[in-house]
Amino acid sequence: MRLLIINPNISEDVTELIAAEALRSKSPDTELVVRTAGYGMQYIETRFESMLAGPAVAEVIAQNPGADAIVVAAFGDPGLPALKEFSRVPVIGITEAAFAAASLLGTRFSIIAISARITAWYRDCVESNGYASRLASIHSLTDPLRAIGSVQEDHAEILVELANRAVTEDGADVIILAGAPLAGLARQVRDRIPVPVVDGIGSGVRLAEAIAGMQTGTHRSGSCAPPPLKDRRGLSSAVDAQLSNLQQGDRQEANS
Amino acid sequence: MRLLIINPNISEDVTELIAAEALRSKSPDTELVVRTAGYGMQYIETRFESMLAGPAVAEVIAQNPGADAIVVAAFGDPGLPALKEFSRVPVIGITEAAFAAASLLGTRFSIIAISARITAWYRDCVESNGYASRLASIHSLTDPLRAIGSVQEDHAEILVELANRAVTEDGADVIILAGAPLAGLARQVRDRIPVPVVDGIGSGVRLAEAIAGMQTGTHRSGSCAPPPLKDRRGLSSAVDAQLSNLQQGDRQEANS
Amino acid sequence: MRLLIINPNISEDVTELIAAEALRSKSPDTELVVRTAGYGMQYIETRFESMLAGPAVAEVIAQNPGADAIVVAAFGDPGLPALKEFSRVPVIGITEAAFAAASLLGTRFSIIAISARITAWYRDCVESNGYASRLASIHSLTDPLRAIGSVQEDHAEILVELANRAVTEDGADVIILAGAPLAGLARQVRDRIPVPVVDGIGSGVRLAEAIAGMQTGTHRSGSCAPPPLKDRRGLSSAVDAQLSNLQQGDRQEANS
Amino acid sequence: MRLLIINPNISEDVTELIAAEALRSKSPDTELVVRTAGYGMQYIETRFESMLAGPAVAEVIAQNPGADAIVVAAFGDPGLPALKEFSRVPVIGITEAAFAAASLLGTRFSIIAISARITAWYRDCVESNGYASRLASIHSLTDPLRAIGSVQEDHAEILVELANRAVTEDGADVIILAGAPLAGLARQVRDRIPVPVVDGIGSGVRLAEAIAGMQTGTHRSGSCAPPPLKDRRGLSSAVDAQLSNLQQGDRQEANS
Amino acid sequence: MRLLIINPNISEDVTELIAAEALRSKSPDTELVVRTAGYGMQYIETRFESMLAGPAVAEVIAQNPGADAIVVAAFGDPGLPALKEFSRVPVIGITEAAFAAASLLGTRFSIIAISARITAWYRDCVESNGYASRLASIHSLTDPLRAIGSVQEDHAEILVELANRAVTEDGADVIILAGAPLAGLARQVRDRIPVPVVDGIGSGVRLAEAIAGMQTGTHRSGSCAPPPLKDRRGLSSAVDAQLSNLQQGDRQEANS
Amino acid sequence: MRLLIINPNISEDVTELIAAEALRSKSPDTELVVRTAGYGMQYIETRFESMLAGPAVAEVIAQNPGADAIVVAAFGDPGLPALKEFSRVPVIGITEAAFAAASLLGTRFSIIAISARITAWYRDCVESNGYASRLASIHSLTDPLRAIGSVQEDHAEILVELANRAVTEDGADVIILAGAPLAGLARQVRDRIPVPVVDGIGSGVRLAEAIAGMQTGTHRSGSCAPPPLKDRRGLSSAVDAQLSNLQQGDRQEANS
Repeated sequence: MRLLIINPNISEDVTELIAAEALRSKSPDTELVVRTAGYGMQYIETRFESMLAGPAVAEVIAQNPGADAIVVAAFGDPGLPALKEFSRVPVIGITEAAFAAASLLGTRFSIIAISARITAWYRDCVESNGYASRLASIHSLTDPLRAIGSVQEDHAEILVELANRAVTEDGADVIILAGAPLAGLARQVRDRIPVPVVDGIGSGVRLAEAIAGMQTGTHRSGSCAPPPLKDRRGLSSAVDAQLSNLQQGDRQEANS
Repeated sequence: MRLLIINPNISEDVTELIAAEALRSKSPDTELVVRTAGYGMQYIETRFESMLAGPAVAEVIAQNPGADAIVVAAFGDPGLPALKEFSRVPVIGITEAAFAAASLLGTRFSIIAISARITAWYRDCVESNGYASRLASIHSLTDPLRAIGSVQEDHAEILVELANRAVTEDGADVIILAGAPLAGLARQVRDRIPVPVVDGIGSGVRLAEAIAGMQTGTHRSGSCAPPPLKDRRGLSSAVDAQLSNLQQGDRQEANS
Repeated sequence: MRLLIINPNISEDVTELIAAEALRSKSPDTELVVRTAGYGMQYIETRFESMLAGPAVAEVIAQNPGADAIVVAAFGDPGLPALKEFSRVPVIGITEAAFAAASLLGTRFSIIAISARITAWYRDCVESNGYASRLASIHSLTDPLRAIGSVQEDHAEILVELANRAVTEDGADVIILAGAPLAGLARQVRDRIPVPVVDGIGSGVRLAEAIAGMQTGTHRSGSCAPPPLKDRRGLSSAVDAQLSNLQQGDRQEANS
Repeated sequence: MRLLIINPNISEDVTELIAAEALRSKSPDTELVVRTAGYGMQYIETRFESMLAGPAVAEVIAQNPGADAIVVAAFGDPGLPALKEFSRVPVIGITEAAFAAASLLGTRFSIIAISARITAWYRDCVESNGYASRLASIHSLTDPLRAIGSVQEDHAEILVELANRAVTEDGADVIILAGAPLAGLARQVRDRIPVPVVDGIGSGVRLAEAIAGMQTGTHRSGSCAPPPLKDRRGLSSAVDAQLSNLQQGDRQEANS
Repeated sequence: MRLLIINPNISEDVTELIAAEALRSKSPDTELVVRTAGYGMQYIETRFESMLAGPAVAEVIAQNPGADAIVVAAFGDPGLPALKEFSRVPVIGITEAAFAAASLLGTRFSIIAISARITAWYRDCVESNGYASRLASIHSLTDPLRAIGSVQEDHAEILVELANRAVTEDGADVIILAGAPLAGLARQVRDRIPVPVVDGIGSGVRLAEAIAGMQTGTHRSGSCAPPPLKDRRGLSSAVDAQLSNLQQGDRQEANS
Repeated sequence: MRLLIINPNISEDVTELIAAEALRSKSPDTELVVRTAGYGMQYIETRFESMLAGPAVAEVIAQNPGADAIVVAAFGDPGLPALKEFSRVPVIGITEAAFAAASLLGTRFSIIAISARITAWYRDCVESNGYASRLASIHSLTDPLRAIGSVQEDHAEILVELANRAVTEDGADVIILAGAPLAGLARQVRDRIPVPVVDGIGSGVRLAEAIAGMQTGTHRSGSCAPPPLKDRRGLSSAVDAQLSNLQQGDRQEANS
């Protein structure tokens, strides 16, 4: 099985964190292709930054055919669920994957985030994915970040403390450490948090493998089917071609 | 007062319909600037097409400073609420405006749409805007459209019939004729529908005037404030400059 | 355009605050008729007091024909949505108007109120209008009020502080200063609150103008149409006559 | 135990139906005082008619002290929950009582109503009481009523048919026959409907007895406590006096 | 009328508390049969412990025919709503009864519980019964319990304090003292809490009398009807026989 | 990895269907242990039957230590979420797994079930798991079943037709074929349904592998931690021993 994992922001050091945790998380037979968005923001913490990232992710999808499933590796799921229309293979965000994993592990979860600004967008994600009744709380770092690639080193202690407070005070049964910059932290701090701790990248990789492995068939109808063919102008050539290929029903050309 | 009205799709004939109804709807002293997206789709009926349109609308916003309020004139509100971060003046979608208007007019509303595919995306909008308890039903045309610019001429009869059915069978107190291609139809068919009939463009223009007129102040904090400054790469020069201007707090340069 | 603005409580000094802010808020061509309820309470802070006010507002509506729209100017919207059945022109409460305005300005809003007792009733309004997912928090003064006409003078500082706390701690994108006794305070304190600040009277006036300007047609069917004619006894003569007129479909006699 | 049962409309023949079913439903030791509203509508089927009825019910409450609990006997619960502030003894609507009874009997209930217009108001009641997840469906007669006092004689067959359809097609576990004009019908048709059938009057009487019998204490704080004393003008003398008595905390004078 | 009251845990001292409060609460003519589960836990504070209790309660139901209604007397309602399928007479949990009683008394209620662990399960109950919009808060003791039979003696002061805090800080209109070990405490502390205080056992007894008294008929169809007959193996002989009897429609043999 | 898969009903032919599809679905390195409940019902279609099955599943869990994850293989998830307290390894129901998988594949799903009676219980599951906003519809066979082991052979055509209707009429993006007796049908009929088709057993196996593979840590606190030790009586010896082991924190003895 081959997974295409896409970092929707432009920070190569975050891509490296993602790749490292994806490698630790994947099943033995899974092959990984990890890519960084071609344009966009250093990291994504607002709805507007997420909106800019969606088409950048689409472009990476169009440029990298041949995957069995695609993982969008920024918490907040830029471009989702729209991107599910844009490939014949499953496109899964690490946020929706983390919510699903957390919900299978326990009743209510808390999200620990890396910036105060980012929490409103995460709350949107919880609600739009239908998990509002599962949310115990969202907590975040409040200090400005020294560097996006070193968040987990710089702030591990306070992140663990926020997690433990969510368990004790908010009734969290599961903790989600949210944000690609925290990739890999969960496995390091699990012993210090008395409930399961979910990593976005780990969730994305494992659940993408699971969903692809189920071979459930494709969207040929309904709201996740490819967009109907119509006039278009000014799209990147890769995106433009993928739109045509998806409609021509030619699996080889589209995404495999 | 000056309104910037943006058609997020690339169809000039739809822009003309929008401009005509905006002119009929506006207050006497309001000045209109109507623009068409620089790239994108002929019309927007899926989540993916909407996702592509968001950045195109941002570009038009950045290129057209000086408005007192901005109206995003495609039902489904491409780029909203993210675009509220991207201007110091109110950015209002015709969908959220139509929902607000309908809710002030009556208890529950129905949406009449121009394609079956488009209804799932509209339902998303109802839910993400928090109006699910207000929705009586969504109905749509089912035949393929001959041309996007002539939908209301071609299908007025069936649209009126769908509206009346929503009143009788679904308990709608208000009808929303949804989609910029239907701009202006509401005022033509009001006598044939026994409840108030809301036009997206009319709602967008009138509510943008109202909101701008209230002079409520700007977002300097919270989730609709401009994104924090950070490294970025590959954005259009207009969008890139607007992001800097917004942060520099220079109202003159940003959007007026 | 002519607006009928009704103060549902019996305090003339509150009516003056309402009239002054309505004058500041209205469009140039709008004519205002401001009336005070003929009987009732000094101010309204409970569900029971609101229940008593509904018929008093109905009486003012019946006694003042000729408006293009009617604004019920007490936060909590006494008599709404029932009063929408009682006129051929739009009847809009300042609460539903403030919620609609706040929702167009940002994602989540907080309400700042003038008494602790009043907050339960306001929460009912948020829920019955379907805005529960938009509510960040409700905060209120806790000290007894010296006089209802001087609340904003007496308590401006603490009101601003409560608003700022809602932004910082509760994630409010917009602040609603709730209650007719606060009419006009928003425009005075906007510079000291880093998100848009919504005034109920301003919202009611501007949105009533907008809705009336849209000319969406009347309720001839559905749950907001006039009540079916039936035997009645003991109603005030004005209300009794309006019920007959509404059914006779005679716009001239009913409300214009 | 003494129950005060109030018919919020002015139809004496409906009061007789209420009194007869209340007599059949009550516990042996319960004493009934049945009263009709002093003014208002022949029957109540819209939000506006319900709004007019609330103060009329308040007047009957104020004029009839000495009850251990009060039952407001119109489906839709005019004046509730506001009237809970207006007495030291429990004030219970037959609608909220029927919803509570139906919820204790089964998982989801359907409401069978006597007019199409009335269903929107009933839906409001379901939602404002928080029972939306319990509602299977609402069905109603559609023909005009010959007379309000003979609805159940005239339409028993179709009402039973609607109930059976709700069981078979909508998954109702319990049927509520809604509206005081149907008082007593439930016990006549139970054998023909294969799930429990709830009568509003029976629910109101039995649950009022139960709640009064629990002797849970009074509202001296919170949103159901009597309104704070303040200036008022033009209220009926009985209502005015009750407001004073409630605040003076004099149980003997207020309602017993 | 005869009520079968079942303590789902194995603590005889809790059964005695239940029996004593049931005796104080019941109507004069009601006869009580109080039974303790034949196997299970000392007290129930988790979902798993509740799951084990359900079949134990079913066995007591099957072994004690002849009741007019059955009360399951552990807060959290072990085995409900499933047990409604298992008898021709109403089966009512003290939790659903307390929620219904609290909702008839006021708008929002708080739950005061005896252990921190138990609160998650209670929250499940609030949500699965559809009362989430009615819940103000849940508070609990946090110290370990000396003995389950003496909780109310040992902790009355702090329980009253938690209740008063729920009124003042959380806006509770009604307090539910939750858990059979608190049976009878409500009537002792009512004077010290300024809103109605609901006892689970009192609610269960009174509402079971009320529902049984309404004689609404039985579930012969729908999701609360007896399970369809099918092969089964290894059930207790009493449960096995009751399943057959329920299907044979023989009221005399099943539960009366 | 070793999965323990438990059929909560007593039908060995259903266990065989489960085992066969689990074998087809699992990853190469996964070892399966498939067990049938020791007592209970031929198949489970009501809440009561599900309640009886919970403890039977607990017994199988206690008797079969050494798994890395446990799959409860009846749609409706008997014993869940309570059973999550009863093992140190993840316990996952096929229903929650199917809902999670369907939600990752598309926006809204429909459930196709094998009996009309079963649908109310499935609806409970959708709601208690928090997926109500994701549900497009539930449809079911209505004819009585000839035999539980041959449902899919006997009714494949009508099941496919129901699925297609859910896509066309209800807007389903994903179809869940619900119920262990349908295990394996999804992969046979995928080509005839134009959206992804989810199999409960496939979901349960694949998602249990994924969750176990994430090694998120155990519940040592919160509402899914093992029940606190307390007196108990009459439990099966295996369940009794597991409760002690879980508390002693001895992973070797408990479940591995």
